[in-house]
Amino acid sequence: MKIIPCPGFKAAGAAAGIKKNGRSDLGLIVSDVPASVAGVFTRNQIQAAPVRLDRERVPGGICRAVLVNSGNANCCTGAEGYRNAVRMGRAAACALNVPEAQVLVASTGVIGEPLPVERIESALPGLLRGLKAEGVMDFAEAIMTTDRVPKVVSRQGRMGGRTFTLTGVVKGAGMIRPDVATMLCFLMTDIAAAPADLRGMLVAAADRSFNRITVDGDTSTNDTILLLANGLSGAAVDSDDARAAFQALLDEVMLALAKWVVKDAEGSNKLVEISVRGALSDPEALRIADTIAHSPLVKTALFGEDANWGRILAAAGRAGVPLNPDTVDVFIGAAQMVSRGMGCGKAVEAEATRVLQSDEFCIALDLHLGPGRASVFTCDFSIDYVKINADYRS
Amino acid sequence: MKIIPCPGFKAAGAAAGIKKNGRSDLGLIVSDVPASVAGVFTRNQIQAAPVRLDRERVPGGICRAVLVNSGNANCCTGAEGYRNAVRMGRAAACALNVPEAQVLVASTGVIGEPLPVERIESALPGLLRGLKAEGVMDFAEAIMTTDRVPKVVSRQGRMGGRTFTLTGVVKGAGMIRPDVATMLCFLMTDIAAAPADLRGMLVAAADRSFNRITVDGDTSTNDTILLLANGLSGAAVDSDDARAAFQALLDEVMLALAKWVVKDAEGSNKLVEISVRGALSDPEALRIADTIAHSPLVKTALFGEDANWGRILAAAGRAGVPLNPDTVDVFIGAAQMVSRGMGCGKAVEAEATRVLQSDEFCIALDLHLGPGRASVFTCDFSIDYVKINADYRS
Repeated sequence: MKIIPCPGFKAAGAAAGIKKNGRSDLGLIVSDVPASVAGVFTRNQIQAAPVRLDRERVPGGICRAVLVNSGNANCCTGAEGYRNAVRMGRAAACALNVPEAQVLVASTGVIGEPLPVERIESALPGLLRGLKAEGVMDFAEAIMTTDRVPKVVSRQGRMGGRTFTLTGVVKGAGMIRPDVATMLCFLMTDIAAAPADLRGMLVAAADRSFNRITVDGDTSTNDTILLLANGLSGAAVDSDDARAAFQALLDEVMLALAKWVVKDAEGSNKLVEISVRGALSDPEALRIADTIAHSPLVKTALFGEDANWGRILAAAGRAGVPLNPDTVDVFIGAAQMVSRGMGCGKAVEAEATRVLQSDEFCIALDLHLGPGRASVFTCDFSIDYVKINADYRS
Repeated sequence: MKIIPCPGFKAAGAAAGIKKNGRSDLGLIVSDVPASVAGVFTRNQIQAAPVRLDRERVPGGICRAVLVNSGNANCCTGAEGYRNAVRMGRAAACALNVPEAQVLVASTGVIGEPLPVERIESALPGLLRGLKAEGVMDFAEAIMTTDRVPKVVSRQGRMGGRTFTLTGVVKGAGMIRPDVATMLCFLMTDIAAAPADLRGMLVAAADRSFNRITVDGDTSTNDTILLLANGLSGAAVDSDDARAAFQALLDEVMLALAKWVVKDAEGSNKLVEISVRGALSDPEALRIADTIAHSPLVKTALFGEDANWGRILAAAGRAGVPLNPDTVDVFIGAAQMVSRGMGCGKAVEAEATRVLQSDEFCIALDLHLGPGRASVFTCDFSIDYVKINADYRS
């Protein structure tokens, strides 16, 4: 996968000694010029200190730098935790000589332990020396917890005759390993856009990507998505066409990142799209897709490569949405398992099993009730997931 | 555990050849006299044929017999499935010489395969010969699917100077093994009560027992609870005192049966009460308890005997209920892990780990917001759960 560094941004990663294994655990993104910023944060009511700080600062609309640590979530750490988030941001602001209010922070790792902020402060000079245009991969590594690989997606688009770049980094290995939680996503672009426009587009893209994936249904206390736009390409979101062009690229990059999170999730072996159509409305379709995507019985059947459509139907039936059992069709890949609520017999099982043995496929339901449709991406529920998540906190 | 057969009821179990392994798979309960009946059924919108039939018949208020098969759920089987449910009931009505409308049926097993109703018809004469007062254990065995043990609970109470008996049978091994779904519960008593009274008490008791347990959050298409009261003890629910006496015993028996289902669930090693107090209201407390009880991350931590309170808090925070992170206390057994939103440090971990190593314990949250409280019973999420549920349908 080719990574295109976004012009005007530098990034770096370093080991600050927060992770016990000595791996890279501190990442920094810096914009050469003040960038417009928009953010989307966890809906969990337990919110980590860095999330609370960023929620105060993002409405200011301008960001110069984002400092992120892994190995400690700085969550459930009280007033001291909040002070440490501020202190972490201040250290970056001083070192970079930028306004403190234009520095954002994020943390991921163990919940409930004090953040060793002095280690972050000590590591900052070295981190700054590592800043470079092509440093995004170092940054991606620094923010990993149980991720198997660093995840960076970049694309270029055209807007008003100018080429612009969008580069996104994500971490999140399912959701949580013993307290090592969180999905973090940072997106850099060189378009010019007002913060309010940026926010509208980010919220729309998040709703079509990260709000459509599930590994275990557990929402972290630290989830953060930040989008920075520095305007250096000269391309500006100043028309409906330009907005559409950027939204399309943003949707594409964020969906690619979101799907990658599911594929790389703890114990995950399969990326499965649960697609529901024919519901009375899109929200009803989403609710059914979501219930199927979260069902432990469906997910263990996916792990077992078992064409167990009874569980799919049973999950659909308990979604709390009107549904006529006698009009439902179920497909596994191209194999139709259920027609108008009745099983299609043993003949299709071989084809369905072949689909289930692949790495990526779609399970589709047609309710034949209306125009509503929605898709959710999920993964299988494996023995490794239980093993990883039953382990004592590392 | 001493089983007290309820006077006036006979029961039996037999092998009809529906299960592939030749085990007992057909059970019958018969009341010597017409009994008042009340029922509670699955809220899943996909409802099996026997559930649809019983829902038509229970409002009649009178029941003479209940015929139950395991090995086939008779669900997603279309019009033919419904006809087979009727046929199964009719066979019992003819053999027992009782009105067809006073026979109820239930099925549990594979979804989507035709019910071999002729095997049921052939097995009925033998089943009838086996009917006896102490046959409830045979019945309990006949309705098992992946249950490890037959589950029968009986108690006696006093009402208006008379002794009455309540004997309940339940099956349900978590929820589902590859399509072998369903919780079924049958309760026999010799009190006298009008069907409407019976129904009010059954709904109340179900809400405090079977609606408070979870294994995997998947609701079966066949769940059925039936309560039959034949009046033979002479004790009648004809006063508030009598009602309270019976309700208390019904609550006790149904909670014991419900907890047993969780203990005997697929791959389950621990019975854990999630108790929430200090919420703004009981329903809000229930929603938080429910979210924690369903969290795969909490349940895998229970399996790992890991005092991972960060996951408990994170689940509470995403329950969609107002919660002040700074006032929450968390206890594992008697060990206080979190005080006013902050971790109590490593010192309590040893005590918490000792609690987590036991078979039964309570995890309690106090939100310090109001008088609302609720409890939910759950189990751990083990490697065996995944193994059992990933296996190809047997």
